[in-house]
Parts: sequence; C-alpha cells; structure tokens
Amino acid sequence: MGDLKSTFVKVYSVLKQELLEDPAFEWNDDARQWVHKMLDYNVPGGKLNRGLSVIDSYKLLKEGRELTEEEIFLASALGWCIEWLQAYFLVLDDIMDNSHTRRGQPCWFRLPKVGMIAVNDGVLLRNHIPRILRKHFRDKAYYVDLLDLFNEVEFQTASGQMIDLITTLEGEKDLSKYTLSVHRRIVQYKTAYYSFYLPVACALLMSGESLEKHIEVKDILVEMGTYFQVQDDYLDCFGDPATIGKIGTDIEDFKCSWLFVKALELCNEEQKKLLHENYGKADPENVKKVKALYHELNIQAVFLEYESKSYEKLITSIEAHPSKAVQAVLKSFLAKIYKRQK
Amino acid sequence: MGDLKSTFVKVYSVLKQELLEDPAFEWNDDARQWVHKMLDYNVPGGKLNRGLSVIDSYKLLKEGRELTEEEIFLASALGWCIEWLQAYFLVLDDIMDNSHTRRGQPCWFRLPKVGMIAVNDGVLLRNHIPRILRKHFRDKAYYVDLLDLFNEVEFQTASGQMIDLITTLEGEKDLSKYTLSVHRRIVQYKTAYYSFYLPVACALLMSGESLEKHIEVKDILVEMGTYFQVQDDYLDCFGDPATIGKIGTDIEDFKCSWLFVKALELCNEEQKKLLHENYGKADPENVKKVKALYHELNIQAVFLEYESKSYEKLITSIEAHPSKAVQAVLKSFLAKIYKRQK
Repeated sequence: MGDLKSTFVKVYSVLKQELLEDPAFEWNDDARQWVHKMLDYNVPGGKLNRGLSVIDSYKLLKEGRELTEEEIFLASALGWCIEWLQAYFLVLDDIMDNSHTRRGQPCWFRLPKVGMIAVNDGVLLRNHIPRILRKHFRDKAYYVDLLDLFNEVEFQTASGQMIDLITTLEGEKDLSKYTLSVHRRIVQYKTAYYSFYLPVACALLMSGESLEKHIEVKDILVEMGTYFQVQDDYLDCFGDPATIGKIGTDIEDFKCSWLFVKALELCNEEQKKLLHENYGKADPENVKKVKALYHELNIQAVFLEYESKSYEKLITSIEAHPSKAVQAVLKSFLAKIYKRQK
Repeated sequence: MGDLKSTFVKVYSVLKQELLEDPAFEWNDDARQWVHKMLDYNVPGGKLNRGLSVIDSYKLLKEGRELTEEEIFLASALGWCIEWLQAYFLVLDDIMDNSHTRRGQPCWFRLPKVGMIAVNDGVLLRNHIPRILRKHFRDKAYYVDLLDLFNEVEFQTASGQMIDLITTLEGEKDLSKYTLSVHRRIVQYKTAYYSFYLPVACALLMSGESLEKHIEVKDILVEMGTYFQVQDDYLDCFGDPATIGKIGTDIEDFKCSWLFVKALELCNEEQKKLLHENYGKADPENVKKVKALYHELNIQAVFLEYESKSYEKLITSIEAHPSKAVQAVLKSFLAKIYKRQK
C-alpha cells in the first residue's frame, strides 16, 4: 500500500511536467513557474483517497492479476484527474465560502500575490483534466465515455454546490428550507458522485465495461457517499478535533448539516425556537446551546441507528450484485468508511 | 439576416428549456428559477456575433445550398455553445477585474443576492456546454472532435487569461514586462482562438472536415483575431464613446494595450519616464498626459499603417487557400472587422 502510494505520487510529477510543456500553449518562464507553483500548492496535498481508489478498484476488478506498468500508470492518471477535479472545486469553494485555511495552510486565494487570480487558476485546474485524458487515452475505445463521465460528474457536483449555496441563502431567512430531502440532494450531488462513483466508474471503463450496465453500482456508491457525508456532519460536531485534524464550525456557519436537519425534525415548538435563536451564530454561548439541545434530543443515538441501518442496507445491496469482483470493490469502499473516526 | 437572428434566438429558448430539465440532476423550483434567471441575465445579451458566425460559416461552406431545418438547428446550437463559453468567461472575468457593469447592466456578481455564488454560476455555464453537445451531437461522427475542440480552446483561453493576469501583476512593478510579443501572446490566447477560430472550426466539423487538415485556416483566423484585438485597444482610446457604447479605461487600468506597448517601443528615455509616471492612474490629468504622448508619437498613424499591412497580409493568405468556399468564410470574417469603428 505504501508502495502503491509512492508510485501514484511519481505519476503526479510526470503529469505535471507534461502539462507544463503542453504544445497547445506558448509557454514562457513566468507562466510555467506560476502553474508549477499553483499545482504543487493545490493538487497533491490531500489524503489522495479518491485518486488511489481508482487503482485499488481496478486491481479488484482484475481479480488480483498482476497489473502491467501501463495499467498502473493509466489507472494512476485517472486517479490524478479526480484529484485535479477536487483541487478545482476546493480552490473555488474556498473563495465562495471566504475560508481561511485548507489542508493546514492558507487557502490559495489568500496568498497576497494570488487573490482573485485564483478564480482563473481554478479554471486552469479544470482544464488540465481533458489535457491529461487526451494525451493518455485518446486512442482508447473508452475515450469518449471518459470525457462524458467527467463532464456529467462535474455538472452534478456544480449543481449540488448550487443548491447548497442557494439553500443557505434562503435558509438564513427561512429555516423551513432545511429538510432531510434537501440535505440528501445536496450531499448526493455535491459529494457522492465525484468522491464515490467517479473512481469506480473510471476503473470500470478501463476494464472495458459499459457504465450503462452498471446503474446499481452507481446507486450503491451514491448511497455510500451520502452516508459518508452524514458521518462528516456528525464528526464535525462530535468527532475528536485532534483525530479529525480540524475544529468543526458547521453550527457557527449555518450549515445545512444532517444533525441540524434531524434535530429540526425531532424537536418540539419550544426547542425549534431555541434552534432558530442560536444556530448560525459565532458566539460560543450560542453554539453551546445548540449542542446541549442535540444531546437532549439524543442525536448521537439517532446517528448510530442511522449508521447501522445504512450499513445493513448497503451490505444487502452489495451482496445482491452478480459479480464477485464488483462486490469486492464495493465492500472495500464500505470497509474504509464504516464507523470511521476521521 | 434579421430572420437568421430570430431563428438563432429561438434556439436559445429550446436549449435553456432542455437544460432546466436535464435528467442528470434532480431539479426543484428554487434551483430551476436560479439557473433560469442566471442564464437570461448572462447568456443572450451580447451582440451574438460569435454564435451567428457558426451558421454563416456553415452556409458558406455549403456554397449557398439551402440548409435543412436540422442543419440550422445544429449550427445554432454550436453557436450558442460559444455564447455560453463567452458568458462563462465574462462572469468570471468581471469578478477577477472587480468590474461594475457589463452590457449596460450591473455585473452578475454585483447583484446583492448573487455575490460570490457567481463563481459557481460561471462553472455551471461552462458545464452546460458538454450537456448541449451530448444531447444533440452524441451520435455524430464528429462528436469526440467537438469535445476535444471546445476543451482545447477553453484551455487556450484560460492560459491567455493567466498570462494577462500575471503580466499585469508584474507589469505594475516592472514596465519592461509589457512587450509586443507578450501582448501578441495574450490576445492570441485570450481572445483569438475562441472568438475567431472556434466558430469556423465548429462549422468545419459539421461539414465533415478534419481540423488537422486545416492548420492554415486556424493560423489565418488567429491572425485576424489578433488584429481585431489591436483594433479594440485602439478604439478604447481613440474610438467615439457614443459609437462603441462605453468609455475606455485601459490607461487608467494599467492594461497591456497595443497602444502602450507600441508607445514604449517608439519613445525616448524622457518620454518613457513620462509613461511610467502617468500610466495606470485614475486621475484625468495623468490620462491626459499619456494621450498627449500618444499623439506626439503619432500612434494613430502607426495603427493605420498596422491596419493596412494586416489587411494585405490576411488577403494574401486567404487567396492562397485552395478552397473557394473556405476563402469565402475567411473573407466574410475579415469584411466584418476591417476598418470597424465599433
């Protein structure tokens, strides 16, 4: 596994070098330096789970057969395309959310020399994906399907981001906009497609599969991605900051969090009033009151119930799948996230 | 021509309706309303020259044969993809430039309800292009070439925008960064590919042509696009504000304008000092001094000389092309811009 990661990281350097010499543009030193720095700052610094899972999934689909060097390179390149996509979203999200830090360093747009140029850097990150795909997959039978896949998933993610943004805009005046079904739509579109479905879909295409025949796989992964995001909402409030590496601020930020939506659903009129008065305020006193109400409503137990129900449902769906190899891919994803603490 | 435009505008409504019902996303009223308003505000309000020129070019390539309804629809859809691309760039450019108005109304991000959500709206506009292409061109032999074309041109445009942004960043400290070759690279990548090459390339693909065989056509159109942008720089300073519909502020904004770069090239040390001291300042007194120096250096005559040289060179290249139909396309573009006053 450590070995896989180091191979994966080496592919990053190759792809970066190719992009910095892309013949579709007339490079000079300033431009090359800028893109180089921008890529190193934004692309490789995460946990790389999404990217690595393309290689993992492809391996499982090949049922343990030793992969050729070319296969490893191509699966890694697709993995990096997902990491590039993620970098693009994060650079722009940080601007929209007016965030300060990301992965333990200042957000890219916060650097004095960068500022609003970060908007165009986000666009460049996005544009690198089809450059990588064209360079390495142009002659593959599944090339057009790869383009379609990345386009569709990006569209879904941007649509999810849109409903997140407009829900928060409306929600600040009218809390009734925050419902479980809105929450599900936001996390499904904003996170699940690109984080869970996309890596497996890439591996399936590389294996010569047609995605149209794998609608159940998509449904299961989207379900898993939704469960993953609910965990995220839970950990933001109840996780150990030392373990998850950050201090959650969903309450202060008026986020359409699963905990909040669930609390709204379970509370009486008086408790609802308390939520209205205290949610979305920076003062620790307000935050404390919201957390106290979560305890009163036993939200932690409600979450644990949700967690085991989700797990059972997912296992049942996975085991109904006709292919053992596909089952193995899905189970490996589930094992990575079930009962996670970070 | 008036008729063509009204047909073209009708296609916009069809495409918009399809996007608002895209099955890849789970719509609700709020989301649909947002995208509807965002599209109407940003996509159709320009001169539509780029979009219309796809239909014009396709007609000329078909040498005057009456087009079928389907051909008109498809050429219009491609034209609208270019207008969508332009809308995407403009929404994001306005944020980066901190602009106030666009096409006679406040910039989209200036609307109180919009703000930084405009970044994601830009992303959505961009994502609509592959949705349109997939819906209407998926079964065409040239589908993958269309995707590659839009991807390459978008990459070039974003790269041009990048060198524009970093040149201005560096140029403010070091005027020697503003050279004719930097200016040429900026306008070629930022404007010429998407405004001049892309419409014709779309028409060529629809006609069953391979773009690899039309490198000279690309070169000529990029040359024309560069000339067009030099005109733009000229008109910003010397055009009639009533005719061009806006008051130019390139001098105040420290733009890497052709006039400025040319002036730097022609001036002596003393004049250079004056340029350094007065360029990029909002005070009308400073602007006046720069303009006086332009007159002193006879920049208007230098421009007129550039204009006729460019024209001659373009005509010679066009007439060297083996196909009369392609010649007609290129000449129609040139006729539209030669000696334009707006």
